[in-house]
Amino acid sequence: MSENGLLVILSGPSGTGKGTVLKKVLSSRKNTMLSVSATTRKPRDGEKDGADYYFMTREKFLRIKEDGGMLESAEYCGNFYGTPLAPIKDWTSKGVDVVLEIDVQGGFQVKNKVKDSVGIFILPPSMEALGHRLRKRGTEEESAVQSRLSAARLEIAKAVSYDYVVVNDEIEKASDMVCRIMDAEKLRAARNEHLIERVLKND
Amino acid sequence: MSENGLLVILSGPSGTGKGTVLKKVLSSRKNTMLSVSATTRKPRDGEKDGADYYFMTREKFLRIKEDGGMLESAEYCGNFYGTPLAPIKDWTSKGVDVVLEIDVQGGFQVKNKVKDSVGIFILPPSMEALGHRLRKRGTEEESAVQSRLSAARLEIAKAVSYDYVVVNDEIEKASDMVCRIMDAEKLRAARNEHLIERVLKND
Repeated sequence: MSENGLLVILSGPSGTGKGTVLKKVLSSRKNTMLSVSATTRKPRDGEKDGADYYFMTREKFLRIKEDGGMLESAEYCGNFYGTPLAPIKDWTSKGVDVVLEIDVQGGFQVKNKVKDSVGIFILPPSMEALGHRLRKRGTEEESAVQSRLSAARLEIAKAVSYDYVVVNDEIEKASDMVCRIMDAEKLRAARNEHLIERVLKND
Repeated sequence: MSENGLLVILSGPSGTGKGTVLKKVLSSRKNTMLSVSATTRKPRDGEKDGADYYFMTREKFLRIKEDGGMLESAEYCGNFYGTPLAPIKDWTSKGVDVVLEIDVQGGFQVKNKVKDSVGIFILPPSMEALGHRLRKRGTEEESAVQSRLSAARLEIAKAVSYDYVVVNDEIEKASDMVCRIMDAEKLRAARNEHLIERVLKND
């Protein structure tokens, strides 16, 4: 089985429960961890460097980015956010599978740079179910729910560019499917040339 | 999840136990069946048409082949053997996954014709283990074992052209891996465009 860990890109519109699916995958699957983002914003109370984010200065962030060390990045409310390549390389080279939870735009940037990354898109069972979930949260006005649904529609239309789609109608089932995808991807022949050679050599 | 069944090409050298792995997959996985070959040889005692083989005349075999209705074919000891497309289409259109156990040469022919088929190559843990298994059978002279090992080496060198490789060191584990590959393949975005559309429409 592949010696290097996978880089998994996990996307899906807000309200699909992809965070819960991811939590389940991380707790049930061996040697699997969540990618940590870099940011130039100040740490909030209780946030730890290297766990919640890699906190860094604007200068350091931009230097890493210029050196090609950010898989993707975006500016949001005057702060930079991005995915540093170095820690991912470090983990995957040790055989650890790294999951990156990211929006579609960021996901495309990463897929472009890491061709053998695995894109998984979490779908809601239906737009109706998604609307229901967003309203159940009870934290947003109907107009905000409607704008989230519009954004979701645009994102879902891009799901076909991912490698896999998983419908989250049941957390258990959806997280099991994500695990199955990861197990299968590790068996891809293209990731296992060394294994084939080893079988042939061990005579 | 994909409405159409998969066509899985299962290959691996003699002695890797791919038959046992396959039996386990067929008995444990829902809606999964073995592809039945066509042949022009006479049925042996107890062999049933449509179960062991589709028995047919030379004329019928060649007519189907000329019409593009054989996914692969080969002549062996004066008889034709081949994989008829029609029954596979019939099953996969009903959502049944069909597994085709076939040698590398036949596997390549099928993959060329059915681009979205899934090629899985069963590897022995090592050439040493394969030799051990072949000798344990006790049915062949050492020279025959050696020629099987040579053939195995040539086949294994082509494993990298398959989509997936699975090492059969434990039947349970290997058959579970084949099932995981099949589950994952059914979630491929390219197989699920209709599903994405359905989510978007169901508003």
